[in-house]
Amino acid sequence: MPLSKLSTLVNKTDSKIVLLVLDGLGGLPMQIGGLTELEKAKTPNIDKLASEGALGQTLPIGLGITPGSGPAHLALFGYDPVVHEVGRGVLESIGAGMSVAKGDVAARGNFCTVDADGNISDRRAGRIPTEEAIPLVDRLNQIELPDVNIEVKHVKEYRFAVKITGKGLVPDLEETDPQKTGVPPLAVVARSKKAEYTAGLFNKWVEEARKLLAEEEKANALTLRGFATDPGLKSYAELYNLKAACIAVYPMYRGVSQLVGMDVIDFEGESPEDEFTALADVWNEYDFFFVHIKKTDSYGEDGNFDAKVKIIEGVDKAIPMLMKLKPDTLIITGDHSTPCKMKSHSWHPVPFLMWAPDTVRPDQQANFGEKFCVNGGLGTFPALDTMQMALAHASKLAKFGA
Amino acid sequence: MPLSKLSTLVNKTDSKIVLLVLDGLGGLPMQIGGLTELEKAKTPNIDKLASEGALGQTLPIGLGITPGSGPAHLALFGYDPVVHEVGRGVLESIGAGMSVAKGDVAARGNFCTVDADGNISDRRAGRIPTEEAIPLVDRLNQIELPDVNIEVKHVKEYRFAVKITGKGLVPDLEETDPQKTGVPPLAVVARSKKAEYTAGLFNKWVEEARKLLAEEEKANALTLRGFATDPGLKSYAELYNLKAACIAVYPMYRGVSQLVGMDVIDFEGESPEDEFTALADVWNEYDFFFVHIKKTDSYGEDGNFDAKVKIIEGVDKAIPMLMKLKPDTLIITGDHSTPCKMKSHSWHPVPFLMWAPDTVRPDQQANFGEKFCVNGGLGTFPALDTMQMALAHASKLAKFGA
Repeated sequence: MPLSKLSTLVNKTDSKIVLLVLDGLGGLPMQIGGLTELEKAKTPNIDKLASEGALGQTLPIGLGITPGSGPAHLALFGYDPVVHEVGRGVLESIGAGMSVAKGDVAARGNFCTVDADGNISDRRAGRIPTEEAIPLVDRLNQIELPDVNIEVKHVKEYRFAVKITGKGLVPDLEETDPQKTGVPPLAVVARSKKAEYTAGLFNKWVEEARKLLAEEEKANALTLRGFATDPGLKSYAELYNLKAACIAVYPMYRGVSQLVGMDVIDFEGESPEDEFTALADVWNEYDFFFVHIKKTDSYGEDGNFDAKVKIIEGVDKAIPMLMKLKPDTLIITGDHSTPCKMKSHSWHPVPFLMWAPDTVRPDQQANFGEKFCVNGGLGTFPALDTMQMALAHASKLAKFGA
Repeated sequence: MPLSKLSTLVNKTDSKIVLLVLDGLGGLPMQIGGLTELEKAKTPNIDKLASEGALGQTLPIGLGITPGSGPAHLALFGYDPVVHEVGRGVLESIGAGMSVAKGDVAARGNFCTVDADGNISDRRAGRIPTEEAIPLVDRLNQIELPDVNIEVKHVKEYRFAVKITGKGLVPDLEETDPQKTGVPPLAVVARSKKAEYTAGLFNKWVEEARKLLAEEEKANALTLRGFATDPGLKSYAELYNLKAACIAVYPMYRGVSQLVGMDVIDFEGESPEDEFTALADVWNEYDFFFVHIKKTDSYGEDGNFDAKVKIIEGVDKAIPMLMKLKPDTLIITGDHSTPCKMKSHSWHPVPFLMWAPDTVRPDQQANFGEKFCVNGGLGTFPALDTMQMALAHASKLAKFGA
């Protein structure tokens, strides 16, 4: 149902919803006939929830479509990522821990190498290591331009994010990476008249940056891509009448949560226990909790099957801490699959567990794992419907029509 | 995902995709408690692929909607048949083996019988048999009009297709079949000013045709329907960056493939072995192969259960020839169901097998059959997503978003 219509059905109640996302949860057996990471993991606590609840599997974007983390989380939060494309400049910035407000313009930047004629000889500045790039970013942060604020954050290796804050900024700008070597970086070109002022600012910033980097051997120039501003998504409070908290370690996920108006909770540590302790600390102040576990995805990307299994088992061990809080509705799922076999995100459907003892229709499945989720009572459904399901099971949705 | 967006994610790789379509594959048990045609068929080779791959079932158009062959194939090819309606004149023409280019106007024609007053007495010319109709079509092919070329092809019994090629032709024309007897055939009326020239041409052609048919007892007149031109679908090369080949015996399927820019391969014979031999012959020249088996549908329409079972078993026997080519991704499915019990196309979901050892998530199903497909790991999904799935499993799709 369109969010505008869903919104009209939402009731405020005391019930509490936890959305526990194990990033990249879905997997593959390493060989045909084997088990997936989740099937291999011993998860007695989650399996008990599975036996009391219902299983299913979600499609993050669509069949065969592998999502990035940004779009995958937007879908889980109920925002169609194909409609609401969040610019890469914004994702890269929030990923680096830099917030982007409506009207700011953010871009992702790459350090590159240019030769004596100013032509690019290496588009990634020889993949300059992070420890060498950070001081360069510090230098770029010295640049000042009239009437605006500029912030630069290092991301990883040759990648950084830059954001300009000020009045009259418009992100309708062409990228400056020519996508090949032997030619100079392009100028920032405005795609529309109203973006010309912003183009001028970025060009001036690049000019200053080039002066500061001139003596560098590898990273003596840069390119800018993915100019974007805050997409202006309606907040959880507006759409769902929920007071929502985000408990996540990594900046990217804290950033996406901010984009939809969640309060991002600060806490010490990064284990599931640390996250559930933070959850307990703010339990009385919110009615929706997004809890994000990153390392399932990281080990998936590494292709480390055993380590991914262990992370899942670690989350399972901490589940009693969460259940002690007595959530009314608990969803355990992933944002996408990251099979160790593929060492990357993938399109495969994502295991989904709905636990809501008052309202769930239990199914025949009693183990949390891909092969059981396939035959779960919730079937295969778009991740975009997760919030509808959460609100319904928490008795927060009125009847549609008389 | 919209094709325009999907297109931006496509990578060119060396992997090869085979889409093996057994026309009308889906079936029904002849009586409750019985087996379907596919369940009855002994298919050890395909079952092995099922055990290594994943099963599911597709909805060609939507729940309860029975597709014609044209729309069903368009969906499999990734073109929404509800959006891209290919006019019946074009489908009938390509079905009869006559290609239709952008700007041509094609129509399907029916021979009919008119009485002394010129009123229709039989809208189908007494269902004149094919052998009597062919000489009449030959006669119609003598008609010439200035500045255009005209081609007529016999289709079946009282049905034929006619195509005009020339400049300034527009298919925005009313049908001439009044849909009842006791009244004369209608004139070809232009629905818009720019179609008036084309209407005039067809009216002149009908006038000449009536002269040539005047002395015929049954087929002394005709009606025209479904005026249409090439729908101008984007090609497989444009959309998917695929070099695609069609291996099919029947003109209709060769025609639909041409509409989406596949190369249609000529070959001798019509058995599965003949088709797989043709496949092997062009294996190195293409990266996508549509292989079409017609007779499953034909025997479905005949209501010949045992013959349909035999055709399926015949395909299974030839599968090792296909597997010897080492496809990276193989899909075995149908375009729609044609249950022998119904002797017609039907809306029932269509069995679907995805075999792609590097990337598939295997499921618990090890037999290719309707009841196993229902519980397959791919779930029930729109046939329209077949190409997305094929590209993903062949590692030809980049991640969506950061």
